[in-house]
Amino acid sequence: MTHIMKRTAAKMADGRELVYFDERELVHNGYDRRELPPRPAAPELRHDDLTDEWIAIAAQRQTRTFLPPADQCPLCPSTPDRATEIPDDYDVAVFENRFPSYPRCEVVCFTSDHQASFATLSPDRVATVLEVLADRTAELSMMDGVAQVFCFENRGVEIGVTLHHPHGQIYGYPFVPPRTRTVLAATRRHLEATGRNLFADLLAGAGDRVVLQNEHLTAFVPYAARWPFEVFVAPNRQLPDLTALSDVERDSFAPLYLDLLGRLDRLFDAPLPYISGWHQAPVRADRDLAYLHLQLFSIRRAAGKLKYLAGSESAMGAFVNDVVPEEAAQLIRDAGR
Amino acid sequence: MTHIMKRTAAKMADGRELVYFDERELVHNGYDRRELPPRPAAPELRHDDLTDEWIAIAAQRQTRTFLPPADQCPLCPSTPDRATEIPDDYDVAVFENRFPSYPRCEVVCFTSDHQASFATLSPDRVATVLEVLADRTAELSMMDGVAQVFCFENRGVEIGVTLHHPHGQIYGYPFVPPRTRTVLAATRRHLEATGRNLFADLLAGAGDRVVLQNEHLTAFVPYAARWPFEVFVAPNRQLPDLTALSDVERDSFAPLYLDLLGRLDRLFDAPLPYISGWHQAPVRADRDLAYLHLQLFSIRRAAGKLKYLAGSESAMGAFVNDVVPEEAAQLIRDAGR
Repeated sequence: MTHIMKRTAAKMADGRELVYFDERELVHNGYDRRELPPRPAAPELRHDDLTDEWIAIAAQRQTRTFLPPADQCPLCPSTPDRATEIPDDYDVAVFENRFPSYPRCEVVCFTSDHQASFATLSPDRVATVLEVLADRTAELSMMDGVAQVFCFENRGVEIGVTLHHPHGQIYGYPFVPPRTRTVLAATRRHLEATGRNLFADLLAGAGDRVVLQNEHLTAFVPYAARWPFEVFVAPNRQLPDLTALSDVERDSFAPLYLDLLGRLDRLFDAPLPYISGWHQAPVRADRDLAYLHLQLFSIRRAAGKLKYLAGSESAMGAFVNDVVPEEAAQLIRDAGR
Repeated sequence: MTHIMKRTAAKMADGRELVYFDERELVHNGYDRRELPPRPAAPELRHDDLTDEWIAIAAQRQTRTFLPPADQCPLCPSTPDRATEIPDDYDVAVFENRFPSYPRCEVVCFTSDHQASFATLSPDRVATVLEVLADRTAELSMMDGVAQVFCFENRGVEIGVTLHHPHGQIYGYPFVPPRTRTVLAATRRHLEATGRNLFADLLAGAGDRVVLQNEHLTAFVPYAARWPFEVFVAPNRQLPDLTALSDVERDSFAPLYLDLLGRLDRLFDAPLPYISGWHQAPVRADRDLAYLHLQLFSIRRAAGKLKYLAGSESAMGAFVNDVVPEEAAQLIRDAGR
């Protein structure tokens, strides 16, 4: 089932791209009449020789919009009195980030309703968002210099959200990021040693760490979870990225993921701060090794207490998790209505 | 110059080790008469096959002491009315952590003065602390199952400090942590390609990123800093760990580091939250490759604003830094009195 009725491309006042993805019959004749300053220089990429990693130096981000009140939200549709980033009403809208961390960064607005959250979207809208992410993955994959596409949502001021309007982000990395590189190396070693896919084996062995499952998808807490609450959501077959999901897989994601988000918010009877991102194959390498999965994790370890990345995690990369993964899985299962 | 006059080992009520390191003539006849519960089981180590990393599952840490008021501080010396972790007055005291993340974790109290901070210690005390860290590095290196010793300080509730009393921590990792492993691999490649030590080359090329320097030590912002304010402090010659520092190197560290901490606190006219840790060689491997250095970094990116590790950093390992390293170095240099 296809949820997007219409896809409309537009340009913003400073030349950035804006794309509307409509479920409803909406008219897009709005025009971005703002006087915007020229777009900032692209961030500088520096190679850290010690860790063999690329660091983006994005000084122009220091001036980015920081927790504006609702009546100054730049992600709400424009009104006659106030021009925002988006001229017209919309269902889902994607535009190039004005303060990019990498040469191509996009913002995806899940709804024009400022007060909503991902957890309150309708199943149809969730499926639409997934179609949009697949569209952006395909588009960014065709761009020069994009090596990997990462679609993610940061939720909650506790993890640094600077805009309350429900939105996600899409990064087109000009390199294959460290986690992907590491996971693909381990996957290659496992394949050579066993003939099997590593992630598929981990999924098959999830056992009492499975929290939700349907015919097409499984949500489970990883065996060596590094966050107090961490869940993988993966298709039951190996796929490289979101563009490979079938319609039925995409449609079956919506109810499962909404169920999961509802449980997470009930864990502490409060909106759970989380990071949720889709791990996809690199654009031009190792597409046969990668296994598409969503990774969602929270820094909340107890009511009123957060997990901080202090010395061991931030300086050494060695994680300490205060919650036993099997117990986290049980808590999430028990948080069903 | 040796700063420790006396080293006194003691046992705590539940069998944990406690060591006093005194500059003054202090008497240690205090006895830990508390009724303490049995020590919790050692944390479980789980291997994350996807990232080839060891995760410590330390569920008993959930009940650890959390931001107690000053009159209930467990790191102050005991009084007739209240037994703390430390029976006697002390200059510097080290004891085994009651809530360890790894089989051997220690707490090092820099002073018995609850209201102090590292930045307010005397130069003599800083040198004493460095001697203590060398002592602990030597001791833990001799223990079965300790592969690497990491000495660090977390400062500020913004990065998750749960006790205000000025203290650091010492972890005896049962494995070589990810950052060390990665850095040593890059160092080996550089040595094979050039015949030179990688860190020594980075130090030699620090140029306008040097913030402080004396005959024995250099403090500089790394070229590809991943944090808004990040400084390496390293001896001017290659050493594997703190036990190899000469007396004169140790003594020259104190004024330089105190100068640095003072500048950092003046950046935003407020105590800067930071993580500061000593990167040392593994206990039994690659001691000829490693180059001892302290890494200090802050998550403060501007007055009232913190750098959060959101989707890109936490899920992908790809860092975005909002401050240009050369500008950070200039700001720190300008923050001299």
